[in-house]
Amino acid sequence: MTTLSLDTLNSATPEEFVAALGDIFEHSPWAAEAVYPARPFGSLAALLEAMVAAVRAADPDHRRKLLAVHPDLAGKAARAKTLTAASTAEQASAGLDRLTEGEYADFHRLNDAYRQKHGIPFIVCVRRHTKASILRQFERRLANDPATEQKTALDEVFRIAALRLDQRVAAADRLPLSGRLSTHVLDTHGGTPAQGIPLTLVELGPGEARRVVATAVTNRDGRTDQPLIAGRPVPIGTYELVFEVAAHFSARGVPLPDPPFLDAVPIRFSVAEAEGHYHVPLLVTPWSFSTYRGS
Amino acid sequence: MTTLSLDTLNSATPEEFVAALGDIFEHSPWAAEAVYPARPFGSLAALLEAMVAAVRAADPDHRRKLLAVHPDLAGKAARAKTLTAASTAEQASAGLDRLTEGEYADFHRLNDAYRQKHGIPFIVCVRRHTKASILRQFERRLANDPATEQKTALDEVFRIAALRLDQRVAAADRLPLSGRLSTHVLDTHGGTPAQGIPLTLVELGPGEARRVVATAVTNRDGRTDQPLIAGRPVPIGTYELVFEVAAHFSARGVPLPDPPFLDAVPIRFSVAEAEGHYHVPLLVTPWSFSTYRGS
Amino acid sequence: MTTLSLDTLNSATPEEFVAALGDIFEHSPWAAEAVYPARPFGSLAALLEAMVAAVRAADPDHRRKLLAVHPDLAGKAARAKTLTAASTAEQASAGLDRLTEGEYADFHRLNDAYRQKHGIPFIVCVRRHTKASILRQFERRLANDPATEQKTALDEVFRIAALRLDQRVAAADRLPLSGRLSTHVLDTHGGTPAQGIPLTLVELGPGEARRVVATAVTNRDGRTDQPLIAGRPVPIGTYELVFEVAAHFSARGVPLPDPPFLDAVPIRFSVAEAEGHYHVPLLVTPWSFSTYRGS
Amino acid sequence: MTTLSLDTLNSATPEEFVAALGDIFEHSPWAAEAVYPARPFGSLAALLEAMVAAVRAADPDHRRKLLAVHPDLAGKAARAKTLTAASTAEQASAGLDRLTEGEYADFHRLNDAYRQKHGIPFIVCVRRHTKASILRQFERRLANDPATEQKTALDEVFRIAALRLDQRVAAADRLPLSGRLSTHVLDTHGGTPAQGIPLTLVELGPGEARRVVATAVTNRDGRTDQPLIAGRPVPIGTYELVFEVAAHFSARGVPLPDPPFLDAVPIRFSVAEAEGHYHVPLLVTPWSFSTYRGS
Repeated sequence: MTTLSLDTLNSATPEEFVAALGDIFEHSPWAAEAVYPARPFGSLAALLEAMVAAVRAADPDHRRKLLAVHPDLAGKAARAKTLTAASTAEQASAGLDRLTEGEYADFHRLNDAYRQKHGIPFIVCVRRHTKASILRQFERRLANDPATEQKTALDEVFRIAALRLDQRVAAADRLPLSGRLSTHVLDTHGGTPAQGIPLTLVELGPGEARRVVATAVTNRDGRTDQPLIAGRPVPIGTYELVFEVAAHFSARGVPLPDPPFLDAVPIRFSVAEAEGHYHVPLLVTPWSFSTYRGS
Repeated sequence: MTTLSLDTLNSATPEEFVAALGDIFEHSPWAAEAVYPARPFGSLAALLEAMVAAVRAADPDHRRKLLAVHPDLAGKAARAKTLTAASTAEQASAGLDRLTEGEYADFHRLNDAYRQKHGIPFIVCVRRHTKASILRQFERRLANDPATEQKTALDEVFRIAALRLDQRVAAADRLPLSGRLSTHVLDTHGGTPAQGIPLTLVELGPGEARRVVATAVTNRDGRTDQPLIAGRPVPIGTYELVFEVAAHFSARGVPLPDPPFLDAVPIRFSVAEAEGHYHVPLLVTPWSFSTYRGS
Repeated sequence: MTTLSLDTLNSATPEEFVAALGDIFEHSPWAAEAVYPARPFGSLAALLEAMVAAVRAADPDHRRKLLAVHPDLAGKAARAKTLTAASTAEQASAGLDRLTEGEYADFHRLNDAYRQKHGIPFIVCVRRHTKASILRQFERRLANDPATEQKTALDEVFRIAALRLDQRVAAADRLPLSGRLSTHVLDTHGGTPAQGIPLTLVELGPGEARRVVATAVTNRDGRTDQPLIAGRPVPIGTYELVFEVAAHFSARGVPLPDPPFLDAVPIRFSVAEAEGHYHVPLLVTPWSFSTYRGS
Repeated sequence: MTTLSLDTLNSATPEEFVAALGDIFEHSPWAAEAVYPARPFGSLAALLEAMVAAVRAADPDHRRKLLAVHPDLAGKAARAKTLTAASTAEQASAGLDRLTEGEYADFHRLNDAYRQKHGIPFIVCVRRHTKASILRQFERRLANDPATEQKTALDEVFRIAALRLDQRVAAADRLPLSGRLSTHVLDTHGGTPAQGIPLTLVELGPGEARRVVATAVTNRDGRTDQPLIAGRPVPIGTYELVFEVAAHFSARGVPLPDPPFLDAVPIRFSVAEAEGHYHVPLLVTPWSFSTYRGS
């Protein structure tokens, strides 16, 4: 799906407008239709607000249908590749297209139990989560009462819509949906930034699973040229940032034992706010290290 | 094998003496026989020194045989359970009795290559190593020249003898064979030792293997009641010490995000000196931690 | 005053007993007289408890007199050297015998204001305080109401008595009156304890005043051979512990800028519990340091 | 003295040019005269290089005079207020216009001894130094041989000229003469930047002297709105950066002892490279802190 400018949308015909935004809410072009008369929109935030208001103001039966048409996570539609393009990309972002048979079975069981208890599919804004975090949400929300889940599901639908809209429409403003994960390595043995440190960001779980999310090498300021995650939510979940430090000290001529006391240094931490800024630096000597949530 | 006192040995008959110490050197009671006349020994160190001197002074052919009678590591004798009691316990200490088929094949290949090149079995003081470290030694020493390996093998034989002697004989002195691994958890958020922190010491590798070596819970001084390893060498290798910190802060009423920024905190480090003292403390708040090689 | 054993006291005549303990409460031998019949005392704690109970049970007029006979801090009696031996030593411990004329004037003013408002002299257990802390207490307690101060003054009298008793009588138990201040220097650049680091403990204030309390040099374990303060209360107040680190790194051959980034490293901290254990270590490289309240 | 643009200088008459740059070298307009014909200069760096080359190429006698006409530091001319405007501002920058009588006497003694030994006045680029560092240079350079000092003095003259030129002329380039001193406070108890922390930068020495260089309060990112020093050299010397942390924790509702374990936290460090970037952050909880040379 190509990106459109807000100006283009503001001067679009009804057909063009709905063609562009009809899938911001899953299989529910009526929300786009409802806001068309309110053009022009001064900002992306105003457009989102209008669409959310249209859903909130719609007939309850419409809202129930909006929830009902969402596909199961890692469900039959996903396996049959009959999802919408947006849903396909979203489910892939959390690795739901690459499950083991055991994981498929877990999702299947949870989907059925959730639908049976709450009468709607389990809806979560997948781009804000890791696979482990989705499973944790699933178990938790299964335990809620149906009224709570109606409300939670709608909130998640709005989060999904916001992320879709932010990707679809180019405007002067961006929606406040992005988090950030960055790092910095200081060599407190030499008193300088540590340049050339290879590092790997690994997503943990479920179980013992480890998935490499990003790799980088520190530059002369001890930072990575790009943040490890930026311009999108930082998926809620647990990570290890693993820094390879021994070669750096060897190259500086520091005598090290064999094997070195510190070599691959993992820093394990969890992200709870997908829109938060997480700066996780490493201060390191051959014999000590420290880390903290920085800014 | 029961422990004997040095006094008992000093007043033993030749038969009793050799029965007690005949297997300090593998299948080589002649070393015990050789030092019997030198009784009484004033210390365990003097007894060891005498036995080592006897081996060094022996006919070269005897020494060659001493090396030749050592069993392969994880070899046929081990699988057939025909090792000496001492060798059985030693090989088990590094997990060589619980190899995967792939690891057995690796050991088999290395044993054959080593014997073919150096004319002796690969001898290493297993109690000073982890499985990963043994494999690393194996690859390295395979690359040496045979003369170097004759010397290295004899040094390892003496290390094995010293550990066996130290376990067998009770004396006023102990041989300086023990390392120490300890920890300490300080809650720098509350300004007190962190009591009740569960922690696990995991040995890493080869490959992705993780083996739990010890578990403990910190006491009111933030320490473990016993060192994690003491009274024996700390096997050379790589470890993770994993501290479960989030429940401690929750119990203290500290508000934490969900999931907490820090929960299971792994500290990965390597041991290079089996007789060294490794103190690996954790200073931790809900948002930061540091560690160092302490004393 | 010499130390007596509890056994000796338990078998003393009334005259000997009162001669030994008559000044535990300032100018008030009646407290010792009152407990004489209760001999023998099984412990120092029991003896103290009995004497405190005797004071609490005494005629209110006696207690008023007990408070009234206490000398002013840094007052006329002190300058005229007519204090009891115990009071003289106590006031000297906080430097009240070495005041500037300005400080004498401050004490004079506060003594007068306090007596006028509360009808008793200002009583504080001086051994638990620094000069700055005494002045802070003085200002604060001046603002209280007289009833509160009657109670506070008596509590302080009991603290003074306990410390006097603990110094005077040798018994199997000691009263829990001692705090402890210790340190430890780790060189996290080299991964070892930092040996040979000169350090100075300085008491701060009032004003810009700095008074050296202790000096030491770290031993091979990076500690001082004796704690900086032990066997007595740690006077409440603010301190700097100053570590001279640059020469240590130079001696190890570490290249340093001129002047070195870190040389004299002051750690400023305050003691609030005179009976607390304060461990204030330094982890240091030529380019970084950290400290914490340890245990 | 007003700032001129490089373009203006490039199109100036000889008289205007020398009027503008005649005092870049103390009382030596001939250097400006010598480079006039080489106009236009493409950059400030090129102009400086030309003037330095002119001095190096000049008759040795001219160079001797150039050194000889420099005023004594804190000398008679300074006390009589007959220095050039540039020298007056420079000497004031290091506080040489506010000496105690004892310090004046020290400078007087050193000036005389230096002139007697080396035959020239003591010349140092004062803007790159603190008072303590100037005195240390003075003692050291007094011990050198005269030939070394002729060379050193000329290098300092060029440093003085570069700083004067950089202040006098506005161009697209700036000369690389500026260092930077900055800080950052992280509250690792709360996991956020520490906002509202008052801090003071104090220059130390000579002796016990303390001079406040800058004060600031941290903003919501835990930084100061402006670097503590920027756009000029960071004077070589020893500093304390003192952070007032207890009120921050109290305001956050953290229970603290009375007095708090940490309140005014001084970080003492030295600057050796006047053109270096010094980032000196503080990571702090109520019970611990750490710092390091960052980037």
